[in-house]
Amino acid sequence: MKLELRVVIRSLGLLLIVLSAVMAVMALFSGVNRLTGDAAEGAAFQALLMVTLAGALGGGAMYLAGRSSSGVIGQREALLVVSVSWILAAGLSALPYWFWAGLRPDAAEIAHDFDRYVNCYFEAMSGLTTAGSSILQVVETVPRSLLLWRATTHWLGGLGIVVLFVAVLPMLGGGSRRVFLLESPGPSPEAVTPRIQDTAQVLWLIYVGLTVAEVIALMVCGMGLFDSVCHTFATLASGGFSTKSASVAAYPSASIQTVIIVFMVLGGVNFALYHALLQGKWRRVRKDPELRAYLAILALGSVFVTLSLLRHPARAPASTTVPASVTDTVRDAVFTVVSIQTTTGFCTADFDQWHFVAKATLLVGMFIGGSAGSTAGGIKVMRLLIAAKVIWAELERAYRPRVVRPIKVGHVPINDDLKLSTFVYLIGYATVFGAGTVLLMAFERPGDIDITTAASACAATLNTTGPGLGKVGAVHNFAWLSDASKVVLSTLMLLGRLELFAVLALFSPRFWREE
Amino acid sequence: MKLELRVVIRSLGLLLIVLSAVMAVMALFSGVNRLTGDAAEGAAFQALLMVTLAGALGGGAMYLAGRSSSGVIGQREALLVVSVSWILAAGLSALPYWFWAGLRPDAAEIAHDFDRYVNCYFEAMSGLTTAGSSILQVVETVPRSLLLWRATTHWLGGLGIVVLFVAVLPMLGGGSRRVFLLESPGPSPEAVTPRIQDTAQVLWLIYVGLTVAEVIALMVCGMGLFDSVCHTFATLASGGFSTKSASVAAYPSASIQTVIIVFMVLGGVNFALYHALLQGKWRRVRKDPELRAYLAILALGSVFVTLSLLRHPARAPASTTVPASVTDTVRDAVFTVVSIQTTTGFCTADFDQWHFVAKATLLVGMFIGGSAGSTAGGIKVMRLLIAAKVIWAELERAYRPRVVRPIKVGHVPINDDLKLSTFVYLIGYATVFGAGTVLLMAFERPGDIDITTAASACAATLNTTGPGLGKVGAVHNFAWLSDASKVVLSTLMLLGRLELFAVLALFSPRFWREE
Repeated sequence: MKLELRVVIRSLGLLLIVLSAVMAVMALFSGVNRLTGDAAEGAAFQALLMVTLAGALGGGAMYLAGRSSSGVIGQREALLVVSVSWILAAGLSALPYWFWAGLRPDAAEIAHDFDRYVNCYFEAMSGLTTAGSSILQVVETVPRSLLLWRATTHWLGGLGIVVLFVAVLPMLGGGSRRVFLLESPGPSPEAVTPRIQDTAQVLWLIYVGLTVAEVIALMVCGMGLFDSVCHTFATLASGGFSTKSASVAAYPSASIQTVIIVFMVLGGVNFALYHALLQGKWRRVRKDPELRAYLAILALGSVFVTLSLLRHPARAPASTTVPASVTDTVRDAVFTVVSIQTTTGFCTADFDQWHFVAKATLLVGMFIGGSAGSTAGGIKVMRLLIAAKVIWAELERAYRPRVVRPIKVGHVPINDDLKLSTFVYLIGYATVFGAGTVLLMAFERPGDIDITTAASACAATLNTTGPGLGKVGAVHNFAWLSDASKVVLSTLMLLGRLELFAVLALFSPRFWREE
Repeated sequence: MKLELRVVIRSLGLLLIVLSAVMAVMALFSGVNRLTGDAAEGAAFQALLMVTLAGALGGGAMYLAGRSSSGVIGQREALLVVSVSWILAAGLSALPYWFWAGLRPDAAEIAHDFDRYVNCYFEAMSGLTTAGSSILQVVETVPRSLLLWRATTHWLGGLGIVVLFVAVLPMLGGGSRRVFLLESPGPSPEAVTPRIQDTAQVLWLIYVGLTVAEVIALMVCGMGLFDSVCHTFATLASGGFSTKSASVAAYPSASIQTVIIVFMVLGGVNFALYHALLQGKWRRVRKDPELRAYLAILALGSVFVTLSLLRHPARAPASTTVPASVTDTVRDAVFTVVSIQTTTGFCTADFDQWHFVAKATLLVGMFIGGSAGSTAGGIKVMRLLIAAKVIWAELERAYRPRVVRPIKVGHVPINDDLKLSTFVYLIGYATVFGAGTVLLMAFERPGDIDITTAASACAATLNTTGPGLGKVGAVHNFAWLSDASKVVLSTLMLLGRLELFAVLALFSPRFWREE
């Protein structure tokens, strides 16, 4: 079948319009701030307004250009829509930062990380993919409206920007199931309702519900409305952007940190389980093997790291306080394990100073990630459950070659296709991780980077976690890297968020060949 | 079926007797050396004689103890025989080193690396598995008979100690096919003749033929008989033990190094192809997809490393000479790439001083390894061919879900079982590698080890290469590591040589359960 490019262009145009509409809200917020006396918002308001208009016009033009399309979205068209959507969305989302940096009254005198477009693109891709890796050296230099936009990119990307417009717009027709499946993470995403648009709406409603709950909880604990909203967006999307350079360490309140821990855990749960819960299917939720494994791994990691911290108390870094009590140590351990494994990336402690065992545990958690169908990144617990069962079975084949046992996760039998594709995914993941590390080592000058920094930067972006170790650790940022490395890491974020194949397929010559 | 332990004990007894017979030859060599005036051989002769007798008596006792067995070797018995054979053989092969260290006349005054049994076991396992990682700080301190024994462990382990006794002894009966398949490397080892004993004999005859050829070639180039034999054993087995601390760098002769390059390449070829060649099946050999890929990867790696070396000439380390000319640089590059990818591990240059790109290329080559059915370690080219084709097909499934293309390597179709087990193997390999690295980091004191050293030590042993990078690099050794780390690395060598599952299966509780 011929690749129908016009329907792709039309869909991308629609996406730009939806994004512009969200950006208009930011412009409004900026304008209100400006009027109430926040002088820093002047340039931000201009920037947001310009990008809103540019996005709406560009999107509108694309929509019209693709209007005459048949409207049928096949598998290849869906892949193109999803992959290009994310690149285009990051390109557009970066513009407010970049325009603002140029429009600042003191732009000529004081340099800013947003002066260079590659930094803005990195930050926007990091936001949308919910990585949360930042090139900002001092977050507080950015106006509030742009910080809200930064948090909003998390929130939009968490559940999926294309899933969002499947939910709000019925225009995709038969293609909506395809794009939904491509954008939802996990080995076998499930539609919770027969109509895919209903599923998208249900998921977004659950997401909105959780969002409202966390904002209220944070405000009850004493956080201001603006910071509550921004941190909530970053928590539930498993993002990790904070409005403070010190991240959540800026809020030493035990209750605030506990609320964030709870909602980070909730963000890493398969959203289909919330739907089951709403329908009163308690048993389904209680018996869910992935949920149990996910919680068990989090608990185990927390115990490991706590024991390691009690045995080897961290050296006190300049920017964080020394854990004074056992309670604080336990909270730091649990917070960090949850933040890293759910691939959120908030920090309350400089875990780069921790003992090797603690750091290795975090790194393993980073790769494990959250559940399939959650907002978390990483490999996903479900894939590891399948892999573990298959390895176990292969081990038995070594000594009982004739015994064949069907493999199940819970009550769901795992067929041969899913077995193979799970392992292919794992190898693809490891290959991309290794290739990224080699590229970073090759692109930076030898003295500037060490293997821990390079590997952990790739792990932190591919798993969409945020901070890594060494020079991209909890108290550092990604600003110092070369442009080439930033492009590599942005690409890793996209590959991690879209689970490799949707993006990699575009590089296969056969994709473009008609058959 | 009940696990028949007596047949396992009988087989292991036989193995000890075969090993003792080989050791008796070493004792004879030592005795002749002693008589012709080599004073250093006194203690070595005693040690070798004692171990020969102990092995023969122990083996005889085990054979008698298991005599009453039914003689049927099932799959589980075969796994036990193969895994335990190697551990037992390493344990016995270590004894001559250890006894010698204790019997030395100056044992009380001068310490030696062989004073500790764990070092001797490491060296013996490294010999048998053809890793070639050494704990010897100065190789020249060891008597010639023990150096010959050290090289002989390579030679025995290269094609497989159990395959050897399948070849010489008909006692295994129906179990011989099972143990042959378990010990021969590669995804699907092939028997070149209908009777497995004939196959084992053919393979050993080819091996002996290549050995004679290399010894003659090295002697023609001016190397002495003793060194020629030792280096030949280490070359063809893809081992890497040299009789010199400086390894092959001690022989700056271009012709010697070229001969070794050629035979290292030959050792990494599937031995079934030599059989085909002997039968005049030229076309089969010329069209063999694994052979082509193996040679292409070697060539590509050589070009990469040569270019890197020409662009970034290595700093001159103390123990190796600075490459003076382009010819020398090219030879160093080719020698090192071939030595590392065939997992031999001979050195002519301190590649730890090379640029990152060159080191990364070597590390990738280390993991790729040689061909299935060769003496080389690593993942094996065949597995990577299968994996690449499956990944390619999965990529196409992302955009053409309904197209099913059968996967072939050459003319051989790859069935679903082999696809899955290839990927399971890759993931198992990566997991064992990662776990080893974490264990090393945890077992050594933080200041003593860095991640490059730990990871490359695991890569060098799991792939049975020999030297790694950093503190286990080309001009270093493994003596400084803690006992715990040495046990970990010895285990990695065994896992790499027996390709994981034969060993890991023993740790599965179900293995020991009767069904």
